[in-house]
Amino acid sequence: MNVTVTDLTNELLRSYAQVGGINHLDGKNLPSKCAVVAITVDLLRLVFPGFFDDKPLHSSELKVETTALMDSVLGRLEDEIYKSLEYAAPEGLAKKDLRPAAHQTSVDFLRQLPALREILQTDADAAYRGDPAALSKEEVIVAYPFMEAIAVQRLAHELYLKKVPLIPRIMTEWAHSRTGMDIHPGAMIGSRFFVDHCTGTVIGETCEIGDRVKLYQGVSLIARSLSGGQALRGHKRHPKLEDDVTVYAGATIMGGDTVVGARSTIGANVFLMQSVPPDSLVLFEDVKVKVMNKLEHRATKAGQI
Amino acid sequence: MNVTVTDLTNELLRSYAQVGGINHLDGKNLPSKCAVVAITVDLLRLVFPGFFDDKPLHSSELKVETTALMDSVLGRLEDEIYKSLEYAAPEGLAKKDLRPAAHQTSVDFLRQLPALREILQTDADAAYRGDPAALSKEEVIVAYPFMEAIAVQRLAHELYLKKVPLIPRIMTEWAHSRTGMDIHPGAMIGSRFFVDHCTGTVIGETCEIGDRVKLYQGVSLIARSLSGGQALRGHKRHPKLEDDVTVYAGATIMGGDTVVGARSTIGANVFLMQSVPPDSLVLFEDVKVKVMNKLEHRATKAGQI
Amino acid sequence: MNVTVTDLTNELLRSYAQVGGINHLDGKNLPSKCAVVAITVDLLRLVFPGFFDDKPLHSSELKVETTALMDSVLGRLEDEIYKSLEYAAPEGLAKKDLRPAAHQTSVDFLRQLPALREILQTDADAAYRGDPAALSKEEVIVAYPFMEAIAVQRLAHELYLKKVPLIPRIMTEWAHSRTGMDIHPGAMIGSRFFVDHCTGTVIGETCEIGDRVKLYQGVSLIARSLSGGQALRGHKRHPKLEDDVTVYAGATIMGGDTVVGARSTIGANVFLMQSVPPDSLVLFEDVKVKVMNKLEHRATKAGQI
Repeated sequence: MNVTVTDLTNELLRSYAQVGGINHLDGKNLPSKCAVVAITVDLLRLVFPGFFDDKPLHSSELKVETTALMDSVLGRLEDEIYKSLEYAAPEGLAKKDLRPAAHQTSVDFLRQLPALREILQTDADAAYRGDPAALSKEEVIVAYPFMEAIAVQRLAHELYLKKVPLIPRIMTEWAHSRTGMDIHPGAMIGSRFFVDHCTGTVIGETCEIGDRVKLYQGVSLIARSLSGGQALRGHKRHPKLEDDVTVYAGATIMGGDTVVGARSTIGANVFLMQSVPPDSLVLFEDVKVKVMNKLEHRATKAGQI
Repeated sequence: MNVTVTDLTNELLRSYAQVGGINHLDGKNLPSKCAVVAITVDLLRLVFPGFFDDKPLHSSELKVETTALMDSVLGRLEDEIYKSLEYAAPEGLAKKDLRPAAHQTSVDFLRQLPALREILQTDADAAYRGDPAALSKEEVIVAYPFMEAIAVQRLAHELYLKKVPLIPRIMTEWAHSRTGMDIHPGAMIGSRFFVDHCTGTVIGETCEIGDRVKLYQGVSLIARSLSGGQALRGHKRHPKLEDDVTVYAGATIMGGDTVVGARSTIGANVFLMQSVPPDSLVLFEDVKVKVMNKLEHRATKAGQI
Repeated sequence: MNVTVTDLTNELLRSYAQVGGINHLDGKNLPSKCAVVAITVDLLRLVFPGFFDDKPLHSSELKVETTALMDSVLGRLEDEIYKSLEYAAPEGLAKKDLRPAAHQTSVDFLRQLPALREILQTDADAAYRGDPAALSKEEVIVAYPFMEAIAVQRLAHELYLKKVPLIPRIMTEWAHSRTGMDIHPGAMIGSRFFVDHCTGTVIGETCEIGDRVKLYQGVSLIARSLSGGQALRGHKRHPKLEDDVTVYAGATIMGGDTVVGARSTIGANVFLMQSVPPDSLVLFEDVKVKVMNKLEHRATKAGQI
């Protein structure tokens, strides 16, 4: 059978007409993932000038460069927010008000960059102080995936609070793919936050995290049961960690009414579904490991891992 | 000592001549990782038109754009499949038959895109219904790393079934690096599949997964013992999950003769090496956590985590 | 309120002047993350010629291409090392000696590439022999994230030993973001090393790992207590694994005085804080799973996961 490119294309076009999952031939368009990612990179350049550029900035160019970048980000962000509002407008917003709303949201968001810079400095400081392998606060900013993850989440969280659809999640999922840490844009996170190693840590949408909280890799702050599916949307489903809590690697804390009291420490691999008072130390009870001699063990039964 | 670039280069060239690990100066060439990744991105564009592009498509351009993209993908895929067949040809295929085989395999593969689009729509739907944080099926496609991981695996699986060497694994490892989820191209996965958060989930080569299965982050579906190494190649080594199974975060299910019966739920962090009947609920027995007051604990012994 | 781009920019410039976290308007500049990543990619091209290129090399071009790439890498590496030494010079190095030191360090480092190629071939061989899903050593090099992670770590480790600041960590964090495995540049790792799946595996700065060691995903080789923070810098904080040790998925081994004796096997999810003698098999004691019938379970109490 001699199938041509035209045949292949026609079969696929028939599928487009029938199955859906197309962004969007006419009418409403979703924001572009590529465009949102490019804007996010430029926001990181505005927040940490020189760190995410090919070469360091010089002070003589700083004003001109920053103005040009700000102008570009404002226009592109407004376009993507406009598309996201067109796709899923907040209640009570008429079609003719979408463009002005997109502009105002973008301006309001960009005015928060100085405040975001301040809180991100507290995160960089916490990372530096918490990790004996860190050489300086600058090394943390330039090298640690944590800084990228938390910077993107704090940016996305502001858009989430302004009820911008889609874009916050595209931003945090981009950071997720680069850092291995999945922080939902909805999570409320206090100052001086640090997650060491990051990989595999999951922080759900309705988490509340106090100041000076430290997490390790593989920590899950998740919902108790997801059998409810879409019915649970908007409900508080994820735990609260009060100030100065530390959670070691692999621990899972579950449920919207679970509160970890201030200054508590949760040990590695603990599975916690209940609240604990302030100053708690939570460990697995009686986790024994069995140490055998391998050669003797093999003599008695087939060594099975 | 004044070492020149020529000296450095000559030392390295001597190493090239001796140690190997070169792709390949003459004779057979491996498929290019870069080329395979670029093809994979274009396959995602064919499968979800407009979602992975800089800007949404317009219907007036759809036919022309799709034809051009299809033509380009067909030619490039044929080239890479030819290289992979040249590198490790299936038994009974003569050298002169490699190019026609590469062409036919590419055409047969591309004809499956409409069917793949249908099953991927069921995955997007499962993700939307299963996650209260999801706003719409479109958000799932545009933002969720899961959709990228499953789309690439389902594409790679078709090439795996056609016994194309190397390329399927390059495709899934690219998705692995972007999503943190490692699904081998050999795994057989039913419709309406969803993995929440993805990071750290591992699905081995000979896994069989039914319809409407839901997994969470950090789930391992792996082989019992790998001490056999290469001797185990081609054997059934990984578990089977029947329809409607849910596996919570961090659970490990091990072994080629382990079957999880339909509608079963496997709790978080469970380590399962045996089959369980349909409708099972599998939990850790007696996992107690010890909650102590930290200040009192410190008084009695040095607080050690 | 009509806020202009100039207003937005001026507010941000005020923040730059006050809060810091800028790379660096004048005076010392940090090495550029982008430049270091580009150099790392080119080092991979020198180490595995043809594997990371768009198209395979031909032997007729090999000498010319390698010379040009070596020349380019030497110059760019010297520039970045110079910036890193300017930022944090080793004690006793005068400002005028920084440039010659950066040159000599770069040359000494590049002379080690042939030796690094030899040890990386042993890793590729270990990966091939250890994974029944691997088709050939070439597939391992071209597709496995492990090879990228270990190649970057072994390169970065040489710069770490030469006390180059910042750059080694930028290199390994780049590999971390691509592979999900976080190996600190300080870790000492023997030959024939392999980590299957990689995601979530963490290997700390002062780890010592013998020859022929095999790890799986989610293994943590970490420090006992990090409450000491910066005070612990430079101390041995992470475990030692002797030759021929295997550590299964999700196991955590903790502490600077923990030694896992040669030929030992550590089972999945084991949490080990003590040394074990050679030939040990370490398993969780009495980890039982409870298998219930879901329908009966629901009849007695609300089914809670």
